[in-house]
Order: sequence, then structure tokens, then C-alpha cells
Amino acid sequence: MFFASDNAGYVHPEVLDAISRDNAGYAMPYGADAGTQRVQSKLRDIFEAPDAMMHLVATGTAANALALACLSQPYETVFCSAVSHIHEDECSAPEFYSGGAKLTLVPCAVDKMSPDDLRKAIANEGTRGVHGPQRGAVSITQVAEKGSVHTLDELKALVDVAKEFDLPVHLDGARFANAMAALGCSAAEMTWKLGIDAVSFGGTKNGLMGVEAVIFFDPAKSWEFELRRKRGAHLFSKGRYLAAQMDAYLTDDLWLKSAASANANMARLAAGLRGLEGVRFLAEPDANMVFALMPRAMHRRLHDGGAVYYLMKGSLEGNDPNEPLLCRLVCDWSISHDQIDHFISLAAG
Amino acid sequence: MFFASDNAGYVHPEVLDAISRDNAGYAMPYGADAGTQRVQSKLRDIFEAPDAMMHLVATGTAANALALACLSQPYETVFCSAVSHIHEDECSAPEFYSGGAKLTLVPCAVDKMSPDDLRKAIANEGTRGVHGPQRGAVSITQVAEKGSVHTLDELKALVDVAKEFDLPVHLDGARFANAMAALGCSAAEMTWKLGIDAVSFGGTKNGLMGVEAVIFFDPAKSWEFELRRKRGAHLFSKGRYLAAQMDAYLTDDLWLKSAASANANMARLAAGLRGLEGVRFLAEPDANMVFALMPRAMHRRLHDGGAVYYLMKGSLEGNDPNEPLLCRLVCDWSISHDQIDHFISLAAG
Amino acid sequence: MFFASDNAGYVHPEVLDAISRDNAGYAMPYGADAGTQRVQSKLRDIFEAPDAMMHLVATGTAANALALACLSQPYETVFCSAVSHIHEDECSAPEFYSGGAKLTLVPCAVDKMSPDDLRKAIANEGTRGVHGPQRGAVSITQVAEKGSVHTLDELKALVDVAKEFDLPVHLDGARFANAMAALGCSAAEMTWKLGIDAVSFGGTKNGLMGVEAVIFFDPAKSWEFELRRKRGAHLFSKGRYLAAQMDAYLTDDLWLKSAASANANMARLAAGLRGLEGVRFLAEPDANMVFALMPRAMHRRLHDGGAVYYLMKGSLEGNDPNEPLLCRLVCDWSISHDQIDHFISLAAG
Amino acid sequence: MFFASDNAGYVHPEVLDAISRDNAGYAMPYGADAGTQRVQSKLRDIFEAPDAMMHLVATGTAANALALACLSQPYETVFCSAVSHIHEDECSAPEFYSGGAKLTLVPCAVDKMSPDDLRKAIANEGTRGVHGPQRGAVSITQVAEKGSVHTLDELKALVDVAKEFDLPVHLDGARFANAMAALGCSAAEMTWKLGIDAVSFGGTKNGLMGVEAVIFFDPAKSWEFELRRKRGAHLFSKGRYLAAQMDAYLTDDLWLKSAASANANMARLAAGLRGLEGVRFLAEPDANMVFALMPRAMHRRLHDGGAVYYLMKGSLEGNDPNEPLLCRLVCDWSISHDQIDHFISLAAG
Repeated sequence: MFFASDNAGYVHPEVLDAISRDNAGYAMPYGADAGTQRVQSKLRDIFEAPDAMMHLVATGTAANALALACLSQPYETVFCSAVSHIHEDECSAPEFYSGGAKLTLVPCAVDKMSPDDLRKAIANEGTRGVHGPQRGAVSITQVAEKGSVHTLDELKALVDVAKEFDLPVHLDGARFANAMAALGCSAAEMTWKLGIDAVSFGGTKNGLMGVEAVIFFDPAKSWEFELRRKRGAHLFSKGRYLAAQMDAYLTDDLWLKSAASANANMARLAAGLRGLEGVRFLAEPDANMVFALMPRAMHRRLHDGGAVYYLMKGSLEGNDPNEPLLCRLVCDWSISHDQIDHFISLAAG
Repeated sequence: MFFASDNAGYVHPEVLDAISRDNAGYAMPYGADAGTQRVQSKLRDIFEAPDAMMHLVATGTAANALALACLSQPYETVFCSAVSHIHEDECSAPEFYSGGAKLTLVPCAVDKMSPDDLRKAIANEGTRGVHGPQRGAVSITQVAEKGSVHTLDELKALVDVAKEFDLPVHLDGARFANAMAALGCSAAEMTWKLGIDAVSFGGTKNGLMGVEAVIFFDPAKSWEFELRRKRGAHLFSKGRYLAAQMDAYLTDDLWLKSAASANANMARLAAGLRGLEGVRFLAEPDANMVFALMPRAMHRRLHDGGAVYYLMKGSLEGNDPNEPLLCRLVCDWSISHDQIDHFISLAAG
Repeated sequence: MFFASDNAGYVHPEVLDAISRDNAGYAMPYGADAGTQRVQSKLRDIFEAPDAMMHLVATGTAANALALACLSQPYETVFCSAVSHIHEDECSAPEFYSGGAKLTLVPCAVDKMSPDDLRKAIANEGTRGVHGPQRGAVSITQVAEKGSVHTLDELKALVDVAKEFDLPVHLDGARFANAMAALGCSAAEMTWKLGIDAVSFGGTKNGLMGVEAVIFFDPAKSWEFELRRKRGAHLFSKGRYLAAQMDAYLTDDLWLKSAASANANMARLAAGLRGLEGVRFLAEPDANMVFALMPRAMHRRLHDGGAVYYLMKGSLEGNDPNEPLLCRLVCDWSISHDQIDHFISLAAG
Repeated sequence: MFFASDNAGYVHPEVLDAISRDNAGYAMPYGADAGTQRVQSKLRDIFEAPDAMMHLVATGTAANALALACLSQPYETVFCSAVSHIHEDECSAPEFYSGGAKLTLVPCAVDKMSPDDLRKAIANEGTRGVHGPQRGAVSITQVAEKGSVHTLDELKALVDVAKEFDLPVHLDGARFANAMAALGCSAAEMTWKLGIDAVSFGGTKNGLMGVEAVIFFDPAKSWEFELRRKRGAHLFSKGRYLAAQMDAYLTDDLWLKSAASANANMARLAAGLRGLEGVRFLAEPDANMVFALMPRAMHRRLHDGGAVYYLMKGSLEGNDPNEPLLCRLVCDWSISHDQIDHFISLAAG
């Protein structure tokens, strides 16, 4: 019963098969292989963006930090939610890659910025001449950090605020497929049709070994990205193995099917938990992640029964035995219904 | 007939098998998996260094730039040969990761610094108070960039110069195994027993998909490395797949056997070329790489016959048909004797 | 009637006289002159800190950014109030000089952090292993940004929190003398006796042309400071003119007398304003600065009468004529009583 | 007899008078004062460049590093001579300000690059795709580091090489006035008429307390410069005192007169030295600096007689009493003929 993260499961067998199939002969290194070209072409088709440029990297932090470095200047500030992954979980990689840009934290009720708060945060910067940082890119996480999925209207409203100020928009799509599966929209509808400029298109949390694509809809930034990627040591000599993974991912909708499985697993889990006394969700689990408050006794039963998940910071510190614990539960594509049902029955006590 | 690089061949089947074998169930992410612990332990045994700390990354540039960032301050200068990979081929990743340190280029006849030149270069810096950069780490490449292998005595002499000035020493061992196979020494003899402080221990050029280990013999720098690795976006969530590769690499001497194969392939190639009219080597191919001057007609025959390798910069620019061309030829472990013999027969004309 | 800033007045005549007196003959450059030595010695006496190291720079931002760069690592976060000058008014100089460290903004009612909020902010960082930034220095501004002066007990409580976590403490003392004059304490009591490690000791806002001293009570950081200062282009060749200014400043208590004048001027201004209908202070003006809410009609009279001061951001944007305006009023040492009284009479209408 | 440097003399009395004259009342801070505007206008007139933007800083290193940061990307390399001040004497400030760009050192016989060597150095970079740094700005020092002045034709030839590759050109003019005085040309002829894009226009070595202007002939880079200057902590609150110095400098040709004096002093010194047995110049002293080889006995006489100048690195290390010493001798505007003549008579023995 492993609900700790969607980056802990095994690689989808079709992905590993694709690697094995390609594992013969020689291929030109550093992305000059045929597979990398094929992936670029498939992504252009999927995104209905024939001019877009796609670049592969191996970690989500690399995708985010490199994309933002291409959209920002060192004397600018990037606008993101106060709980954003780029702020909380990347050890200041965006600051490092941008040469010292700031992040301006926009308040959020749970994990979504409101357009008004974003507008206020942007309006509040760039007003002190050279003394303050200048307004830089806006970064939005989809699926958001506590499990919410922005609707297309919500995304549009945030992008529109950025465009009021003529700022570029980056989408941290570590769980891009899960969001699309939840919304039932197209990749284009969730990105450039809204005005989004660059996307971190995740694969690692959805069955790959370690591949993300950075997509620029305007190819002008592409060469700078390639230089910054190399300089950041993220250019793989054996790029063909990144390409093989992403290629399999994009073949026969594997990416969407895996995401749909993960989301369905979470829906099953949430449905089970929802009925239990003392359980409350921080946000509706729109995709494959939920932050749930649960009674301590329930946690003890689960833990003793072998369930693995993260207790959020501070959960166990207090002394009040009546205070519930905040747990993060994530389903990946491979979790079985049996595991979920067993978890629920343990929780029910 | 692919002699372009040892980063273009396929992954060793035993490595891929290891990945497949491990591809089940869940593993704690970010290096907290059992495989990563196992690799650390194996490397400690191999290096006879029970306190050393080992960290996995996926590219050689990451290994070098992160190791040097831990050994250097932004106001220092790193001493390396004028043809070193960290200077020529990493798009200034060392400068980026160190926060703007300099590289001081030590002259080299072909690809090895002499102790005297290194001493002179070090003595020449750090003499202008705050006006010049301060003396920083020394970085040595083994196998060196044009195919030479430093003898243990040569390495010792360079390390001793660094120690005269109390400077830390980094070994760029992208082809570490090839050097060891050539020298027939132990890993300890080629590193900490000489006084080397940190090693980029390469695997990617010798049959892995993309894994290098950074080794610090003094564990004090280890935590800083982990922070810089994360901040550089080089911490893999699914670290177990890096570990699986490195584990297979270190099992049953696969790393040394593969390197020995590659070296033997080069020896066969070199023996064949050596007898041909008009062929000259820039340096003796001690390991698996040679830079060879060859007549233009010979190159044309090889090229037309399907041989793939790099012509060095400027080779084809001149107009003098009598001027030889400088070619880089690299053998990986998987090159067949047939390919080599066919290459030689084409070259012979 | 110039109340816009204490960095807009003229240089104290005794300071200019000192420059003129010294303006003859040759002096060794880059701080190797006798005057720089003399200043170091005087500051050590004043601070009762015989081992401390003092370094001169020409701007307050240089003092803060360089001091913090010596106390922080790029992968750390600096704790400061949400309205701190280093966050709001230095165009991310601390991020630049530290190589990309973060600032963690501690909430503050007006301009002082509470020990509890600081503790909470520190406790909240450094809990996510390598994923978040590590805990770095604490920076406190004295006089604080809205005109408050921390009492010694308040400072002590904040420093104690930093020491609970073993973090170094920096004091941004752009108005150091004004705070000391307000508290009537010694320089040592306001700094190292509390546990403060480094001080930006301001002079520019108190009658100098442009000189600040950075003071490290532990001399171990001194050489690194000198390297970072040079590298940041803040080492003056003609250092003797910085020294001459600081020397005059420290002679016959000029610094304290000037600060006392400035504070007294503010007290006179505040006393006058306090009695007026509709005027309210954001914080008690403990030193030489006040943020005052005043009716729009009052502002119009003052403005038309030639008074100069800053309206804070947004003050004039609203449409509600009943909403008061937020003004910043600063007195330097040279403001005359006539100017102040004329201002009050204009304000009174 | 102080020939150590032109940054050790006193400030020209007319400059100090200008400061004193302006030292009254209030002036808007951060360059919004009237004096800064006046200086901009005067520099535009002198450079015959009505659209150019001028920015004041206080050190030559700040001028160079900030100008180059605006002309370079972190993944580029700046081309400069192997003895350039930006490489040898700024503790890697250009690397720091540019975010980690490289400097490519162009060989030079004494202190001037040849167009061929520059072309070769540029051609040699930017040929390895993303693996090497990209071609960046060219920086030329005028007066060069060993005392030579480039003729207009020499400058033109270097700028033309840069323009072949479409690269921007920076002129490090720490001794701009001395060069102009030596060449008898106009400021425009020595800069934008040749194609130079940005100039560090020095004042500190020629009678100012500490002011340099950075000039961009294309104003497009001006705003970025202002942000980088603030972020680098080089924006002075009391900018009026920088302006007052520069204003006096540009009034009644003070800058050119002072430079002419300094050059004439050097000419007198050189004429005297030239006749002495065993004296040889590294380069013809075209302006106010000479590097002279002199017998050890001569040096001893001068030293014992109270002459101050720098012995170059290594001069005194050797044991051979017959080996001459390399000395740097610099004249500033204020050196008296008596001092020079006394120096010569001591040298003559």
C-alpha cells in the first residue's frame, strides 16, 4: 500500500520495452538521434503547434528552472503561488538558474492563486523604479500542489492577468497528463490557446524513468534553452534513451491512459475515505493526489498495517490526541484496486 | 563502423537486465532506495575507502561541475589543462556552478600538463592580493583529452604540486575504467593514495545509459554536494534506476571488463593504422581513443565506405590537398573486430 | 522644507573640511593608506571590540549585500522582515551577491518582527532536507523601515531566536547612529553584546558623502569580505577619501551629535503633527523618520506650500476623498527649526 | 617621488572646489539631481552623440564589469588581451557580473592584440555548438596595460574584426583622456566613429576622487544598465557628488589638460631614462605609464632615495645580480618637474 508519491512506482513496462527495443547499434549523441526528432514531431502534433520547440531533460526541477531562466532576467521577480513547487521543493534552483531572480509569493487559499491576488502581487512590484525587482514571468502549477486541478477558465483568468502586464507565462506541468485527463481537454486548450508560453511537460510521475519535455510555443527561446541546458549539465550524451521513453509515452495514448488510471485510483480512494468519520480533504482531489486530515487512531491502524504515505510537517508534533493528522496520499497508475480497498478497510477500522 | 564516440553505443545488456529486474514495486525516491545504499557500499569497497561518500548524477558535466563547485569559491581559479573538457566542452558549466570562478589554462604539449607548467601557473596566480583570483582546485583528466593515460608517477607529480600550495585535487574520470585497465592499478592507487580529493567516476562512456558517481574521500563535503546537486536539478526522484545501472556496472567487474574490451579494440585499430603510409598519432592511444592525422584520400575512402568519426575543427578548411586531416577515433566496448578490420582495410586502400 | 529623505541633504561641513585637509600628496591606494588604518582603530575603540575587522564601502546596499554574502551560502535562505530594505529596495542585490540565496519574509505588524514570528519562520525552513533551502543568516534593520527603533530587549529577543538555531545575525544599521542616539546605549550594547555578528554601520544618511563600514566582530570572515568587495567592484583605489569622511564622522562624536539633531528635529515635527486633526502615525517615530497618515487637504496645502516628501505607493490612486494619504517624512541633521515650524503651520491650515 | 600609480595622487583642486560649491541644500537622490543631467548633456556634446546614455559609477571595475554584463550573456565568452585589466586585476568581477561568462585571452606581444590574433581567437570559439561558450563582446583597453596607446587605425582594425563576427565592442578607457591627449583626436573619433558600442570613461586616474562614466552609444541598453548598477550596489544615493566631480572634470577641458600634463610628465621621465645605461622600455610610453627594465643598482639608489613605484612580480626573486628589474612607473597630472628630475639624477647615479 504505497501512497507516498507517484515518483516511487516502477517504470511502465511499455516504456522499458521501448528502451530495450532501441538498445542496439549506434546513435548520434546529444539529441542528434532520430528518436529525439520523432518525439519533437509527436509533441508538435499532440499540441497542434507545428512551430513549437521541445527539449528533453531528466528532472522536473531542470524543466522548471531552465524554462524560467529563459523567460526571466536576474533583476526580475517570478510570480508563483506561496505553496508552489518551484518555491518550496527545488532548493532555490530557479534562483540559481536565473542568476538570482526573486520569486514573489502570491497568497493562495489552498493551492490556487486567485486572479485578484495575482494582479495585486504583480501591481505591487515594478513600482519602485530600479530599487525593486522588475516584473517577470508568471508560473502556474497544474495539477496544483495540494491536488486541485485548475479549470480552463481558472487558468485563462490567471494568464489574462499576466498578459495585462505583458508577462510571459510558464506552466509547471509535472502532472500535466493527470490534469488533462481530469479536464478532458486537449493539450492545446490547456496551454497556448490560453496564452501560455512555455510548459514543463512531465513524464516521470506518470510511468517514465526520468524524462520531462520543456515546450516553447515561440521557438525564439529555443537556442538559449539549449545553451542553458548544456551549461546546466542537463544535456544527455545518450539522448536516445530519453527519447525512447518519451516516444513510448506518447504512443497509443499511453500517457493519457496512465494518467486516467492514476486519477481513477484516487477517485476510488477518495470515495472510500470520504465516508469515514473524522476525515476531511484540504482540497477536492481532482486528479491523483489528496491531502487528508484523519484521526490519529486511523493513522496508527494504517501505519501498523503497512500503508506508506507522508505525514505533513508538524503533524505529529502536537500533544493533543484529538488533533487530526494531515497526510498526503498519491496514487500512481500502477496501484491496484486491492491495495486501495485494503487501505480503506484498515482506515475504517 | 562507428568510431565517433564512446557515448553513442548501446547500453550493456547486463545493465539493461539489471534495470528490468529492479522494475517492480515501489522504492523511496531521491536516493533513499536500497540500491543507492548498495552502490555506495560497493564503491567504498572498490576504492578501499570506508569513509568516502558517493553521489550519483546522470551526466559527466554534472559530475565535474558539482564536484568543482564544492571544492572552489567564486573568487578562486581552477587550474586545468588548456585542452581540458571542463574548459572546452561544458559551455562554462564549471563557471556557472561555482558562481563565477575562473579556469586558469595550463599549457600542455598534447593533453598532459607538466608539473613544472602547473607549478608555474599556480605560482603566477594568487600574487596580486585581492586584485586577482585566489588559487583554487586543480583538475586533472584521466584518460586525458587526446587519449593519453597519465602514469601513476605522472599523476603523483601533479598532485604533489597541488599539495605544495595546499590545493584540493579533482580527477575528471569520464574514462576512469579505461585508465585503470590501461595501468593495471587499483582504484585507490589511482586516486586517494596519490592525494586526490574528489573523483568524477564515469560510467556513461563505458556501457551505462547515463550514470556517473562523484566520490569525495573526505566526507565533509558530502552534504554541500547534496544541496548543490538538488539546486542544480540533478537529484533524480527515481534514483533507483541510476543505482541499478551503477550496481550492474560494479558487479563481476563489468566496468573493468568493458573498459578492457574498449582498450583492446583501440589497440587493434592503432596497430592496423600504425603501419599505414601517412598516418601519425597525436599521442599514443593508451586507452580507447586516438587522434590520428591521415591523408585526405584515406579519409575519403573511409567516409565513402561508411566509417563514422569526427574530423577535428579546421581539418577540411584548408585548400592544401597534401595537408593531412586530424581525426578522432574512439572505440567503445561493443565495437567488433570485424568493424575494426574492415576500417583498417578501407584505410589501407 | 525637504523631508523626503536623509540621503538628500548636503555633506556635513566638518566632513568636507576633513577631505580638503587630506587632499595633498600621495597615499597608497586600495585601503593601504594611513587614514583607513586610523578609522579601523577608532571603530574598534567605539565598539569596544579590539579584534573586530572594519571595511569601508560607499553604499548601504553594498554593505548589506556583501556582509550577507559572507554569512550565507547560495543554498540558504536569509530571514528578514517582510518590509526590510534588503528585500524591498535593493533590486535583489542580496540574491546577486550571495549567488542566489533566498530571502524568507517574516511577517511584521509595522516594521518589527516578533520573536515568535521569527522562530516560526526559521522552524518552517530547513525541514525538507535537500528540497528546501537551508536556514541562513538573520538580518534585522535598526532603525527599522517605518521609523521604529528596536529596544535592546527587543533586539536581544530576536538575536536569541537566531542563536537557538545557531544562525549568524546581521544588523542593517543604515541609521545606526540615530538608533543609538534614541536608545542612549553604547555601540557594543547594541551589537556584539547581544550576539550580533556583523553590522552595516551607516554614514551616508547622517552627513557623509557616501561611506558605510561593514564590521565583523569575528575577524575570520574579513579576508573573504575583501575578496567579495573587490569582485563586486566596491574596492576604491582612492580609499583615503572614504577614510577621511569616516574619520571626521567619528571625531568628537560628530556622528552621534548629527543623529541627535536629526532625531530632535523629528521629535519637533512629530509633536507638531500629533496635535492636528486627522493625523495618525503608522509607528511612533523613535528616531528621525515617520510614516504619517494625513487628510488630503492637508497634503495639498503642504505640497502647494513647497514641502517635499514621499507619498507612499497607492496613496493617490483611490477615489475616496475622505481616505487619508500615507506620507513618509524624514529629518536629517541639517533641517532647521524654521522649516519644521513652517511645515507644521502649513499643515495646521 | 611617487610614481607608483595615477590613483594615488590628490584630487584636482578644481574638482574639490566644485564639490564644495555644490554642498548646500537638498538634491533628489539616486541620480535624479540636476548635476547628473548636466553631466549627461556635456558628455553627449563632447562625444557628439546626442542619443548616447551616460551612467556614473565610482570605480573602474564597476564600469567595466557592468558594461560587459550588459553586452554579454552568461553562456558567452568575452575576448580580451591576455594582460587585460579585466582579466588580471578585477578579481573576476566580469565573471561575477555577467553571471559566469568566460574571458578568452587573446595573445599579445606586449599589451596590444593584433587583428589576426583576435580573429583567430574569435574564430576558434563558437564552433562546438552548445558544448563551448558562444562568441561574446570584445573588450579593448586604451591606454593599454603596459602603457601603449592604440592608434586610431589599430583600434579600427580590432573593431572591424569584432564586426566581422557581429560582436559588440567595449573600450576600457580607465585612461581615456591620456589616450586622447596622446592621439590628438576627438572622443567620437576614438569611439563610436570606429564602431565601439560602450565605453568605460575613466576619471579617477586623472584627478577625480572616484568617478567613471559608462557610455552606451545605443541607448537600448541603458535601462538594463541601471538595473544592474542598482543590483550591483553601485547606485549612489548622493549622486550629486559624483556629478559634481565629473562636471568639473569636463569643464574648461580640465580632463584633457590634466591628461596632457600627465603625459608630458611621462615624456620628461622617459627622455631622462632613455639615455641611461642598462635601461630598456617594454613598450614606448605613449601616455603616462612605462614599464622599464633597469639595473639592480639603479633600483637600489632610487629606492634608498625615496622613490616609490612597483617592482613587477618576480623581479626580486632571482639570484642573478645582473638580471635587470622590471618596474612600473606612472605619472599623474600633479607630479612636479623637480620630482622627475630628481628621480632621473638618482637613477643616473
